[in-house]
Amino acid sequence: MTAHTSKTLRVALAGLGTVGAGTFRILTQNAKILESRTGVVLTVSAVSARNKNKDRGIDLANVAWEDDPLKLAVRDDVDVIVEVMGGEGDPAYALVKTALENKKHVVTANKALLAYHGTELSAIAEQNGVSLCYEAAVAGGIPIIKMIREGLGANNISGLYGIMNGTCNYILTTMERTGENFADVLSQAQKLGYAEADPTLDVGGGDSGHKLVLLCALAFGCKPDFKNLSVAGIDRLSAEDIQIASEFGCRIKLIGQAKKLEDGRILQMVAPSLVPKTSPLAHVDGVLNGIFAQGDFVGPSFVEGRGAGEGPTASAIVADMMDIAKGTAAPVFGVPVNDLAASPTATASDWSGEFYVRLVVEDRPGVIAEIAPILRDHRISIESLIQRGRSQDEPVSIVIMTHEAKGGDIADACTEIADLSCVLDNPLVMPVLNI
Amino acid sequence: MTAHTSKTLRVALAGLGTVGAGTFRILTQNAKILESRTGVVLTVSAVSARNKNKDRGIDLANVAWEDDPLKLAVRDDVDVIVEVMGGEGDPAYALVKTALENKKHVVTANKALLAYHGTELSAIAEQNGVSLCYEAAVAGGIPIIKMIREGLGANNISGLYGIMNGTCNYILTTMERTGENFADVLSQAQKLGYAEADPTLDVGGGDSGHKLVLLCALAFGCKPDFKNLSVAGIDRLSAEDIQIASEFGCRIKLIGQAKKLEDGRILQMVAPSLVPKTSPLAHVDGVLNGIFAQGDFVGPSFVEGRGAGEGPTASAIVADMMDIAKGTAAPVFGVPVNDLAASPTATASDWSGEFYVRLVVEDRPGVIAEIAPILRDHRISIESLIQRGRSQDEPVSIVIMTHEAKGGDIADACTEIADLSCVLDNPLVMPVLNI
Repeated sequence: MTAHTSKTLRVALAGLGTVGAGTFRILTQNAKILESRTGVVLTVSAVSARNKNKDRGIDLANVAWEDDPLKLAVRDDVDVIVEVMGGEGDPAYALVKTALENKKHVVTANKALLAYHGTELSAIAEQNGVSLCYEAAVAGGIPIIKMIREGLGANNISGLYGIMNGTCNYILTTMERTGENFADVLSQAQKLGYAEADPTLDVGGGDSGHKLVLLCALAFGCKPDFKNLSVAGIDRLSAEDIQIASEFGCRIKLIGQAKKLEDGRILQMVAPSLVPKTSPLAHVDGVLNGIFAQGDFVGPSFVEGRGAGEGPTASAIVADMMDIAKGTAAPVFGVPVNDLAASPTATASDWSGEFYVRLVVEDRPGVIAEIAPILRDHRISIESLIQRGRSQDEPVSIVIMTHEAKGGDIADACTEIADLSCVLDNPLVMPVLNI
Repeated sequence: MTAHTSKTLRVALAGLGTVGAGTFRILTQNAKILESRTGVVLTVSAVSARNKNKDRGIDLANVAWEDDPLKLAVRDDVDVIVEVMGGEGDPAYALVKTALENKKHVVTANKALLAYHGTELSAIAEQNGVSLCYEAAVAGGIPIIKMIREGLGANNISGLYGIMNGTCNYILTTMERTGENFADVLSQAQKLGYAEADPTLDVGGGDSGHKLVLLCALAFGCKPDFKNLSVAGIDRLSAEDIQIASEFGCRIKLIGQAKKLEDGRILQMVAPSLVPKTSPLAHVDGVLNGIFAQGDFVGPSFVEGRGAGEGPTASAIVADMMDIAKGTAAPVFGVPVNDLAASPTATASDWSGEFYVRLVVEDRPGVIAEIAPILRDHRISIESLIQRGRSQDEPVSIVIMTHEAKGGDIADACTEIADLSCVLDNPLVMPVLNI
């Protein structure tokens, strides 16, 4: 082995929760292999967290401490800031912005921050000649950012479909396995630490939405935009939906999808969706994440792994650091900021395909005769219809599988259907993916 | 959009079969997106192939032609040579070596070349400050080289397991679906163009071996070595094996595996293997490829896609070109040549785990009484035993599933068992993967 003097990349960690501490652990435990692979020594020179005295099982004796994370951004002994505090606002926003303006590279796991401020922050990074990396922000340990940007970089992507929230996928997988309902499984997931005390951001689809917006921007070279995004969560799903979907050869997954429509517009939406059991996405179980992408030359590509947790997230953060160390980090959304196209404009109402529609109705003759004309008037053709749960004086569920229809037509029809006196609850609508 | 003058990367294509022509097509069809993603214009300045007059559906009017591919390596108007001729010997070897010595980058899809000459060629590339890229050599369009080297680069890999030959996977999937035997399915695959006229390199496992050697070198930072590799093919498998494996909750796949043993040695082997149906590898069907890797921080990771064909292979070749264009291509086997560890030394005889052993024996009493002591003497414990096919005076199959045993002990026991007069054929042995 030749003797060589390696350069050093000095890292500051803003946040020392599980992910920050895990990042520290990789840098220590795998130091030798990281140096060999990059030719650079990665060292932590400063950290900031809420509680200085908490025992995190890592040795911070030779590391400077800042009570105020913003001070990390102006330290002379820091080349890269790792932001793992979370949240789209301050202090994360101020820290990342200040760091980039001070010509520090930034590695972040913060999907919300980039979903809201990605265009602005990527422009600041570019103006200052530094990198803003976020592999850890989407699908944890799965190197999907690098895969879309570089591995499949020769392709025009036509569509991508991701299971990007482990909490939702755990809940759906457990509902399918046990037949229990959403509320019970959520409550168990909270006890097991798989769901937050306030689960809204996960089960409502917002977290998947933050991630989808970043993948969409990267795949299609457009400005990220969280505002123009349809988001539906999994909180209205029943065990019965999962059972009926299975009879149709599908599983229900919370899918974030981004695709190019025939008219050239980019569609982005998050929705619980029926996924054919023949699709690899249907087999992503428990807390795992999985993403399926379709490129014009590569064809279908699928990747699966752990989407959260200390080790996987820290693995992605350090991979970003390695790119920075080697000087190989790419433009934030794949192309220079000035080349970015406008934000996506198409949402769920522009989605075309088959739909699953569940109605809860009074159990009396003539209900279908009231519903059918409304569907017809909105150009929606019924492929099949199942009625379930006939017990005396109880409401019944009607599940309609449609032929290809437009999301906007389905939504309009469902608004009218919901107004019928025989219909007892808002219809539940899910797209059926053809992948 | 700001006006900018892009640099140019001038490419020579050595070989204009489907992959060479596909590469040309991507460079033309996706030219705009490639320039935006790299800041570099990728142009083909010269080509070489056997037949100048064949219509390949691409416009070579402005491209220089060389009858001798070696001449591409010395042209002044070429920065990168794309070698898609194949074969571990000349002219591919001479071309790649000469190109690197003349400070041309090389992108190759040639797994055999690198499996045999990878260490030498990577040293020449390093000495000349140029890149030698081979994303297309392993698993076609799947960016597994980039994933192992960069995406999971922060990890120590403990093991990886790949389905890397579409021909074998098509045959096995079809045998399972139809119940037909190997020879019949192979013959159909040849008619469909999924198998070569001489299928030896595919069905014998050699092609998977070439690819495995490269992944193993990359994952463990060691010199590639095709000689010290155990290879078994799929040609002795029967529909009955697939049926019985299924009863044990497994599918049979041709798996190339590379793993670190407890004593620190690296094991590499290719063998038809029993894969639990719960593993994502079990669901890689038809001509698809799939690779499962286990890292110390990221945990289990899985990727699937098309392993061959014009589009996927060309997608990988152009991805490599993009890295070269951006100046971000990494060391050939992940670390500088001087840091590479010695070649792997462990093979199938060092593999520990459960085994599937099928014996074809005479249908008479006492056969198991002859076999059992031999297994006992080699420290092999039987987990279960199934006997099939009792029809008058016909040989019968006995399938033994063992408890954990060592590959060397199994091989020794099978040598003795094969010598028994009641045993009519060489035992068929397959490892049972625990992933």
